[in-house]
Order: sequence, then structure tokens, then C-alpha cells
Amino acid sequence: MLHAVIPAGGSGTRLWPLSRAGNPKFLHPLTGSDRSLLQSTFDRLSELSSPEHRYVVTGTSHAAAVARQLPTLPESNILVEPSPRDSAAAIALAAAVIAEREPQALMGSFAADHLIADVDAFVETVRAAMTMAQDGLLMTIGITPTGADTSYGYLRRGEDMAAGSVLSEFKEKPDHVAAVEYVSSGNYLWNASMFVWRVDVFLAELGRQQPRLLDTVQQLAAAWHTPKRDELMGQLWPTLDKISVDYAVMEDAAAAGKVGVVPGDFGWNDIGDFDTLGSVLPADESGNVIIGKGETESDVVAVDARRNVIVPSSGRLVATVGTDDMIIVDTQDAVMVCPRDRAQEVKGLVDAIKDRGDVSLI
Amino acid sequence: MLHAVIPAGGSGTRLWPLSRAGNPKFLHPLTGSDRSLLQSTFDRLSELSSPEHRYVVTGTSHAAAVARQLPTLPESNILVEPSPRDSAAAIALAAAVIAEREPQALMGSFAADHLIADVDAFVETVRAAMTMAQDGLLMTIGITPTGADTSYGYLRRGEDMAAGSVLSEFKEKPDHVAAVEYVSSGNYLWNASMFVWRVDVFLAELGRQQPRLLDTVQQLAAAWHTPKRDELMGQLWPTLDKISVDYAVMEDAAAAGKVGVVPGDFGWNDIGDFDTLGSVLPADESGNVIIGKGETESDVVAVDARRNVIVPSSGRLVATVGTDDMIIVDTQDAVMVCPRDRAQEVKGLVDAIKDRGDVSLI
Repeated sequence: MLHAVIPAGGSGTRLWPLSRAGNPKFLHPLTGSDRSLLQSTFDRLSELSSPEHRYVVTGTSHAAAVARQLPTLPESNILVEPSPRDSAAAIALAAAVIAEREPQALMGSFAADHLIADVDAFVETVRAAMTMAQDGLLMTIGITPTGADTSYGYLRRGEDMAAGSVLSEFKEKPDHVAAVEYVSSGNYLWNASMFVWRVDVFLAELGRQQPRLLDTVQQLAAAWHTPKRDELMGQLWPTLDKISVDYAVMEDAAAAGKVGVVPGDFGWNDIGDFDTLGSVLPADESGNVIIGKGETESDVVAVDARRNVIVPSSGRLVATVGTDDMIIVDTQDAVMVCPRDRAQEVKGLVDAIKDRGDVSLI
Repeated sequence: MLHAVIPAGGSGTRLWPLSRAGNPKFLHPLTGSDRSLLQSTFDRLSELSSPEHRYVVTGTSHAAAVARQLPTLPESNILVEPSPRDSAAAIALAAAVIAEREPQALMGSFAADHLIADVDAFVETVRAAMTMAQDGLLMTIGITPTGADTSYGYLRRGEDMAAGSVLSEFKEKPDHVAAVEYVSSGNYLWNASMFVWRVDVFLAELGRQQPRLLDTVQQLAAAWHTPKRDELMGQLWPTLDKISVDYAVMEDAAAAGKVGVVPGDFGWNDIGDFDTLGSVLPADESGNVIIGKGETESDVVAVDARRNVIVPSSGRLVATVGTDDMIIVDTQDAVMVCPRDRAQEVKGLVDAIKDRGDVSLI
């Protein structure tokens, strides 16, 4: 039985204004279904793990929404971070809490806001990773790259084994030149930010590389089911470094031959921005992708317009003529327009709004 | 003293969704000032005509707005059409009503929704036209063409006179091939839809070409200040043909050598669409033209965006990144996005919305 952890942080800035700090993308139904990304992630794990063995690590401002979106998730399995401390702290806390419950438990970590087309293939891949994790490897799941994207970590396949291989390198977010080289070499896979390991193996490696973090999360886990938890969290959590598990643990662990990878081919997409979102959702005959249609009485009139991503979510009409390859997002308090090939720069737009002090809009 | 008539009809479809049938462009302050286009037109005529000698011809749905926007305009000078019958009927009615008051009055007709940069030059040009009109010509004002635009009438200069010249041809809305020829020849000017004539001269020419229209407007004018007016208007007005004064009178009058033109160089723009509107209003350092800013608490954040025309009129934030040469219009019930070089096609967009039956949005 897998203990499945879902770190649910991050506001999905590049999906602004649909995704907000107060209403981040994992709470949105972006998949065309009426289930949010978080709910879809939770559902997808049901063949691998019972609700009692699933956990969500999230921030104070989203705990209530998580509890309501996942009514079958036990309250004690919602781990609330007093403040964001990136994925190393979140995942380490979950591992320590699980270890208190079952010292050699198999743990998986799965991002809350990814899209997966083929759930059966996903389950098979995770099962293969569980087998190799049982033997003591820190397992990753590798996606075949579709381009030299520098926003992903790259996994270099090493010695082949039955289900996958031991990593010879884990390179988090390389520069563009390196990424091109990696992709052309054919030896690298994308890190899908999914991990499977025995908690005792992970915590041992954490202790080798981040002893202070290990000590802190073990203190917190020991007090987890006691009245001291809140006080201790408020006292210790803010002292932790903001660092991702990739930099904090995985890169060096891979260099030490302790990381494995199972290739995953299940239609994975991390929905980084409106362009990638548009690429995975069904388009109309003009190639336009309308997101959220039907949720409200909102609607779209597009004349001689092709391959646009249009998000009508305010109930107002979005009308466009002669536009190709544009993103048009309409919300109650903001309209955002951007060419699809500039979708990554929505992050910079949000920074500009932040600089003006319009925090209410972010 | 000039009797100045302002035909105020037309909804400015190509300026949708800012301009609506119920709230047409001539009622909007699009000039950067806080005066509507109608008010600016009315103001501009003050050196040529007293308020008692100015008239507005408008539809039933705009009569109240016109009365409120122009408090110094006498109520009896607001001529309300029971239904739209294009400019021939509107101008002929005004001419007949003025003739009842002063049979040889000098009358000018000036569109309600045009922009004029140099008012002094405009006044001088109209005065020159008045002199030639006094001598019995139907006077037009000619604008030097800036391109082969097929949405204007073209005036071919003929025999030169002191202030201007007699027209040898008045060609309303030519095809593109002809327009290119006209512009390259250098002998043609654009018809600015401004006319100056003696009402007796105009009505005589109207009688020659459109005897039924003359008879009808003279019946109406005779009854104008009697209780019979409303009944007669309701009875006769709907029987009139929908035709512009250009086709109904000016083309043939020009062929008969009865039309003159005075060249006008006063920064004229008929604000046909958002692209031309953007071209006449001041732009920021990135070439972006923001219209209506300050009217509401609405605002714009544009990052790495150039030469866009942005209309924030709903109070919401309009945010854009990486967009060049686009039109973004935000209103309470509709958002419109269109490339500047497709601005003319907004008309087709409105037709598409009409076809869907969303008349409330038009």
C-alpha cells in the first residue's frame, strides 16, 4: 500500500488572472471536466492508495478549500504549512509524519496541478517505481522530452534495470544550451516532480545532506498528534530554508547513485501556462480552445479567429475578430491578453502588477 | 448667420462594444476631452451660428440624451425622426424646416461624430464655403486623401474659383481600383460629409431629383409648429426611401455643375474605427493609446506591448504582455479583442452577435 503525498502549493502565476494566490490553479477545473486538478490528482491515486493513506501538504490559506474539495481525505492527513518553505520542507515533513506511523512505509509524492491523460499507464508506471523503491532507490518518473525546456529537471539514464534504470545524473533546470544538448542526446528524461521511495531511505539521505531539516521535521512529526504541534510548527517552521527537494536532496543523491528512474508515457502535462493548457484541451474546428465555457452563462464569439485560447469566466461576452494564436482571459476584476508564444511572460506581467501594489488582483 | 444642422444618427458599429445602438459614438467623449463628439461638434459651430440657429436631427432613442448634452439648444431645434431614413430625409427635413423660417437661409450640415483638430481653420473653411454657397452652389468640403479608402466619397476638382472650385465629379464610395486611381491622380478630395448651401437652392435641386421627398418634407415643415406635426410625421416619414444625400442629390447635382468644393485642412478624422481613433489620440512612450483612462478607476498594465489601442471602461484591470498593434476594449458586459489592421471587421463581429440573437449586447 502506497502512502501518497500531494504537495499543493504554488499559485500558478503564469495562469493569472484565472489562477490567483488566493485561488491557485490546483483548485481549478482546468481539465475540461468539473473536477479540479487537485481532485483529479486525488482520484488518480485511488488504485494505489486508500484515502487514509493519502496526504495533502498545503498552505494556511488553502487548507479549507482542500478539505472541502476532498471530503474523503481524513483531516489529520491535511498537513498545513504555517508559511511556504518550498518542496523540500513540505515533502520532508510528510515523510517524517508517515515514518512515525510506519517506519518503512512506501511513500509517493505527486504534484497537485499536473494533467495525466492515461491513468492506467500512470498507475502501472508508479507500480514499477514502487518495486524499485522497495529495493532502496529514491525513484523518479521520467517523461520523454518534447523540447529543450529549461523549466524542468533533466534525468540522465544510467545502468539499466528491469523496470527502469539508475540515474547517472539529475540536473535541475539547466541553461538552454545544456537543455538542447540533453534532448538531442536522447539519454535524458524530464523530471515530472513525482517521487517514490521508502521513507526510511529518504530520511536517511535527507540526514546526510540536510541534517538540520531532518532534525526539525522529526521533532515536528513526533509532536504531530500532541497538543504541542501548533506551537512547535509556529516556532520551527519559519526557520527552515526555502529550497526545492530537487536541489536539497535529489541532485546529490543521484550523483551518489541512489536515484532511479522509470520512464512514464501517460500523456503528462504540468499546465505551466495558457499555451500548454490550450495544447492539451480539445479545440473547435478553428483550433480555438474555449476554457470554462458552460460554467457560467459566459460565451465567446470568434470571427475569422484561429488557434486562440479563450477563457470566459466573468459571465460577459468575449468577442474577437481576426485574432490568431492569442490568449484572452476574462475574469471578474481583470482581463488579460497575450500572444500564445509569450505565455511564459504572464509571470512578468503579474510581477509588474505586484510592483504597482495591486496585491488584491494577484 | 449660418443655420447649422447636425445629423446625429448611426450607431458607430465599428466602435463596438464601446459604441452601442443605445449609446452611439456621437454621445461618447472619444476625443480625450470630457465633451462628447456631439458636444464638440456643437461647440465648434459657435463662431458660425447662435444656438437658436443650430439644429440636431436624431432618432427617438437619442432625443433625450441630445437634449441633456446640449442644454443651450432650443427644444424646437431638435428634429426627431420616427425611424431612421438615412441622410437624404434627415437633411431635407431640416432644410424645409429652416426654409419655413427663412426662405433663403444659408444652411450647413455637419456630422455629429467627426474629430477636428484645428477649429479656427475649420471656421475659415466653412466661411469660404458660405461665400460660394451665397452665389448658388451646393458646397462640399474636401479633405486631401491619405489613402485609397473606399468608405468615403471622392470629389473631383473642376474649374477653379476664388475660394475653391466647381466639382466636375462627385463619386460616392468608389471601388478600390477607382479609389487608387483617384488618389494617385491628385485631382480628388475626400467628401467630409459637410455641406453648405442656400436652402432654396438645395430644395430646388431636391425637387428636380427627388420630387416625392421634397413634397413630403415640405408638408412636414409646413405643419412643424402645429398640432398636426406628430400625426403627419408618423404617417409620412415611414414612406420615405432610405438613401443618403450623396446618392440622392449630390452625385447628379455635381454632374450638372451645381456642386462646389472648398479644400479643408483642419485635422479631420471621422473616427471610423478603433484603429483610426488610436491614430488621432496621444500615445504613451510605447505607442499605446489608452482611451477613457481616468473616467473610472479602471487601469491598464502593459508589459513589452507596443502601439495597442486599449479601452478600459469597466473599472477592471486590463493587463497585457507581448501584444503589438492590437485593440483591446473592456466594457461592463463585453470584451473585444482585434488586431488594429482588422479594425474594420468589428462590424462583421457585431453582425455575428446579432445573428446569435444577443441584441442586448449591440
